[in-house]
Amino acid sequence: MIRPAYRTLDPAGIRAFLAAQPALAERLGGSRADWRVREVSDGNLNNVFLIDGPAGGVCFKQSLPHVRVDPDWKMPLDRTTFEAAYLRAVRPHVSDLTTELLHFDPDLFALVVESLDGHVVLRHGLMQGGDWPEAAAAIGRFVARATFPTSPLALPFEQASALLAPFARNHTLTRITVDLVLTDPYHAHPRNHWLSPELDATVADLRADPAVRRRAGHMQARFLTCRQALLHGDLHTGSIMVAAHDTRVIDGEFALPGPIGFDCGLFVGNLLMHLFATPTPEGRTRALRDIAQFWTHFRRDFITLWTDAVTRGRSGDAYAAPLFRDDPASLRQVQDQFLADIEADTIAFAALEIIRRLTGYAHVADFDALPDRTVRAARQQAVLRLARDLLADPTHIPTIAALSALAAARVA
Amino acid sequence: MIRPAYRTLDPAGIRAFLAAQPALAERLGGSRADWRVREVSDGNLNNVFLIDGPAGGVCFKQSLPHVRVDPDWKMPLDRTTFEAAYLRAVRPHVSDLTTELLHFDPDLFALVVESLDGHVVLRHGLMQGGDWPEAAAAIGRFVARATFPTSPLALPFEQASALLAPFARNHTLTRITVDLVLTDPYHAHPRNHWLSPELDATVADLRADPAVRRRAGHMQARFLTCRQALLHGDLHTGSIMVAAHDTRVIDGEFALPGPIGFDCGLFVGNLLMHLFATPTPEGRTRALRDIAQFWTHFRRDFITLWTDAVTRGRSGDAYAAPLFRDDPASLRQVQDQFLADIEADTIAFAALEIIRRLTGYAHVADFDALPDRTVRAARQQAVLRLARDLLADPTHIPTIAALSALAAARVA
Repeated sequence: MIRPAYRTLDPAGIRAFLAAQPALAERLGGSRADWRVREVSDGNLNNVFLIDGPAGGVCFKQSLPHVRVDPDWKMPLDRTTFEAAYLRAVRPHVSDLTTELLHFDPDLFALVVESLDGHVVLRHGLMQGGDWPEAAAAIGRFVARATFPTSPLALPFEQASALLAPFARNHTLTRITVDLVLTDPYHAHPRNHWLSPELDATVADLRADPAVRRRAGHMQARFLTCRQALLHGDLHTGSIMVAAHDTRVIDGEFALPGPIGFDCGLFVGNLLMHLFATPTPEGRTRALRDIAQFWTHFRRDFITLWTDAVTRGRSGDAYAAPLFRDDPASLRQVQDQFLADIEADTIAFAALEIIRRLTGYAHVADFDALPDRTVRAARQQAVLRLARDLLADPTHIPTIAALSALAAARVA
Repeated sequence: MIRPAYRTLDPAGIRAFLAAQPALAERLGGSRADWRVREVSDGNLNNVFLIDGPAGGVCFKQSLPHVRVDPDWKMPLDRTTFEAAYLRAVRPHVSDLTTELLHFDPDLFALVVESLDGHVVLRHGLMQGGDWPEAAAAIGRFVARATFPTSPLALPFEQASALLAPFARNHTLTRITVDLVLTDPYHAHPRNHWLSPELDATVADLRADPAVRRRAGHMQARFLTCRQALLHGDLHTGSIMVAAHDTRVIDGEFALPGPIGFDCGLFVGNLLMHLFATPTPEGRTRALRDIAQFWTHFRRDFITLWTDAVTRGRSGDAYAAPLFRDDPASLRQVQDQFLADIEADTIAFAALEIIRRLTGYAHVADFDALPDRTVRAARQQAVLRLARDLLADPTHIPTIAALSALAAARVA
């Protein structure tokens, strides 16, 4: 059979594509003429459509041969392949916290997942002053349950290695992270931009600080050599959909093996930016609550999964069960140390995320909530200085609790 | 073409195999009847033969479907595949310090390398009181030159990832390391044995020490999650051949991506065992000299390679050149930190190597140099206690220099 060539599907093409898949057509109900197709592309990379039929809805996502927001930036199509593989790998562990993969077409690089119509993107919801008191705890649970079971703490190393190996080939999107998140903001690069001239001096200070550059270099090495578990790889507040009692992580196309603190750090970094961008005291209180909730639930769930695995004698080859099964005090000590290392990574990656989102290529919308340019510049400057301090002297801010206290003082 | 099935070659089969390869036959000279075939199998796993002809010699190595020294321990054949791949990967960087790969037959899992007839195995040579003053420095150079160029410090991460990925599939031999080196010695396992009853109490103390088990667990995680570079994976003194002014690393079948301190630690651990096993003051002086020489040359060469790469703007994605090219003081600081981390790993892996070689499955011959069983037990006890102290309180022995001073005091 000759595989059809790739083509970017328009709404008519999407209708035909879905109609050709009996399970999808049945899920939508009626016939293709009854389906409503709406483009909801929001991220920088892909086309996304919601399709509603009489019986239900689905979400259709397709890779483009270029960056969606910059057609001159050419890009391989395989990113939906990694998103589909990520959903298959983590869904058994986080079924209530991500989306069901309904179909993947490897020729069209097209993915169909359950529709979350009715949910909102967490970043947009927060910017509009909404509150989802359960969301941050759910994300903590998500990271614990997506990383522990995919690590050699839980698996024989052969299984962990086989599970992680395909994701190490996610070169296209990992290159974006390496360049845009970890490197470009620390030297002069034409992709960088910021609120100018207000932040010119702050950015110049940041770039001139050798301690910041040393720590950025160290975190580059952590990101590229520390292969603890399967990561989502892009866990900012724009990759999370929320409803009243439902939280879902989407957009796993950046998935890669790496340090668990990278997923944690992106989420915490985006909460910190929201903290400094939100115009109300209530918003700030909730942002600090969310940071604390996230870390508490991540840490507790990760340790619970680990302890259960060791107790049942079914943990992996790292911290092997025979060494710790009969010594819960030692298990607790190695868990505390392991989580403290993740905590340090989290704080550093959060700082790098803040810096790249305010001085690099792809910015966040959160500060649009501050219409006064002077206020916006002051808040951005404050959070950039916080990020600089986190990187320059990590021993002074070793915990999420200390980070939150410092952030609360600076934002007040 | 139908590939011939695997068969274990006997000397007649080896003659026929070599005669069928024109380049190898020419290297040996004469005809197959003129060739002398000698079995020199010495390691635990494979068959090894030296073949000499009128014009020259070659070394023939073939995987067996079981552990050579234990035919009941079945094993896949692919280990020579990894040895051939390792030689191909590192030879461009260490051409004077390993052996030339002359031929690899993937059906017979047979490897032909240049013959080192005239060299001796370093472990055997040291046991006989020999001295190779250049060898430890050469091994330091070897580790620096085999690891830096295969790491994301030197390579764009895509290239490092592609180079390392095949070695992450070396599951059979990595399983041996995970079990025999990193796990079994820390709990009751039927494969463990030791000089009994003399060492019974020492081994019981070691197993009962929770700080030792915690550190062993931590090093399991380092070994399995820290993917810094391509490692040799079995760099003990039995994997090194020496002549007066020539040092060669052989037996790369355990090659895998991992923490650089693992290669360093196996070598240092074996030098420490030799230090405690050698019966003469001169032997001890030379063993301490070798530890110092190894570390000095490894560290210096690694940093030189790194600085050159950054200066030329051609380093990898970890500690990316744009951040450090114009700031040599910061480069020096991150190098010192990176090397201090390798040093800590080296000390811990050296301790684990000592413990497994005296209380695990595969022991070293070095202590056979002490015919008096009481003396042998006392020296083994002393080096085991040193290993325990290295693991239990790493902050007190943070450097190779401190380790050497402590070892010198304990062995005196």
